[in-house]
Amino acid sequence: MRNIKLIISYNGANYCGWQIQPGEITIQEKVEDALSKTFHEEIKTVAAGRTDAGVHALGQVVNFYAESDIDIGNLPKVINFNLPEDISIIGAEYVEDDFSARYCAKSKTYKYIVYNHRYRNAVYGSHTYQYPFPVEVDIMKEASKLLIGEKDFKSFMGRKAVVKDSIRTIYEIDIIRNGDFIEFTFYGKSFLKNMIRIMVGTLLEIGRGKLTTDDLKNVLEEKDRSIAGPTAGANGLYLVEVHY
Amino acid sequence: MRNIKLIISYNGANYCGWQIQPGEITIQEKVEDALSKTFHEEIKTVAAGRTDAGVHALGQVVNFYAESDIDIGNLPKVINFNLPEDISIIGAEYVEDDFSARYCAKSKTYKYIVYNHRYRNAVYGSHTYQYPFPVEVDIMKEASKLLIGEKDFKSFMGRKAVVKDSIRTIYEIDIIRNGDFIEFTFYGKSFLKNMIRIMVGTLLEIGRGKLTTDDLKNVLEEKDRSIAGPTAGANGLYLVEVHY
Repeated sequence: MRNIKLIISYNGANYCGWQIQPGEITIQEKVEDALSKTFHEEIKTVAAGRTDAGVHALGQVVNFYAESDIDIGNLPKVINFNLPEDISIIGAEYVEDDFSARYCAKSKTYKYIVYNHRYRNAVYGSHTYQYPFPVEVDIMKEASKLLIGEKDFKSFMGRKAVVKDSIRTIYEIDIIRNGDFIEFTFYGKSFLKNMIRIMVGTLLEIGRGKLTTDDLKNVLEEKDRSIAGPTAGANGLYLVEVHY
Repeated sequence: MRNIKLIISYNGANYCGWQIQPGEITIQEKVEDALSKTFHEEIKTVAAGRTDAGVHALGQVVNFYAESDIDIGNLPKVINFNLPEDISIIGAEYVEDDFSARYCAKSKTYKYIVYNHRYRNAVYGSHTYQYPFPVEVDIMKEASKLLIGEKDFKSFMGRKAVVKDSIRTIYEIDIIRNGDFIEFTFYGKSFLKNMIRIMVGTLLEIGRGKLTTDDLKNVLEEKDRSIAGPTAGANGLYLVEVHY
């Protein structure tokens, strides 16, 4: 048995997220089907991040064990032949037997792209989240500093999350305006379900002037989801890179 | 009758181009249907550029005449309500009676985005043209200077083009690499059918080393489509702006 690591990119628009769910079309199912066809054996994968419905990935990482020998250099092309156009394997390598895409991940980079315009974006509609109100990037940047470090992010946890421990560590947040687009980058150890989307939703309210930096302090202290901002749409979120 | 100018953005992936064709789904048809619904009268539009199947627009311009009075400030929102998600009106204004989106256009800016990677792009597949071979941007930039100015672009004209005069003027070409993406910008008076896609296809061959700058000189002089490079895919092309 060889342990193989893949880097996967996908457009999440047409999928019910990464993780296999009965009766739903998921990316994991498509990838495992393609791998099983490629290797002529049943393959099960472990992924670094279980992205939600509509969320995209530029560098999702999975690993799996296979008995068959294979030309690893040509593997992405062969698997892609069995995958739909909106999923693409962009890297493959043999790894140590004990490598786990999930448990060995040290940190992750996500980005979130906002289309800050009053009318919808026809070209990048499923790739960006539209926010129609004027926002000040500098004010959001200043406020975002409060989110850096090891904190209890309970206020930024989706209600369906099942973890007990809501303490997480964020190393870096970057926010850049590029014309009508605002790009947020989050670099952290790991993230709670919906955490980035709720942080973005809250920062946008601050950038718009509906909430203040002091309100954000309060949101963190109160550990209460209901006083944070709304959950920004899944269509703006990208899993960029998993660091090992 | 009032003459109204609209700025339109669309993702061309699901359309057989701008211009109405019997039996095909076109952007013009969708826009005219939405306008006719909005104004409760039959509306016919004139567009600045008749983009081909699969080509996108960030700033297509049309004009049309309507009898009904309308709140122009709210017009994009109202029309968008009657349009599919991949077409969006992003500007509207009253213009002089003799304004024609097509005949008053002084120049146009297009961009072309190449995804320069050996594996397909799952996220931006319909937004970028994949070119799997390594290319040198500096060599393409140097060669592109030969295309600047008033020239006979007969070698760069799609075979289905019906114009007699193939002399066109290009003011500026810019080529920038951004990671795995190469973005070409073309600013010119007007362009022949498929001209930009053939120029990009030819420049990529030069960047890859299959053709030389001298070959490009020859292509221009010979006025022969068959010696230019291939036509790069429609999915990488964007009509960015029409200048009046």
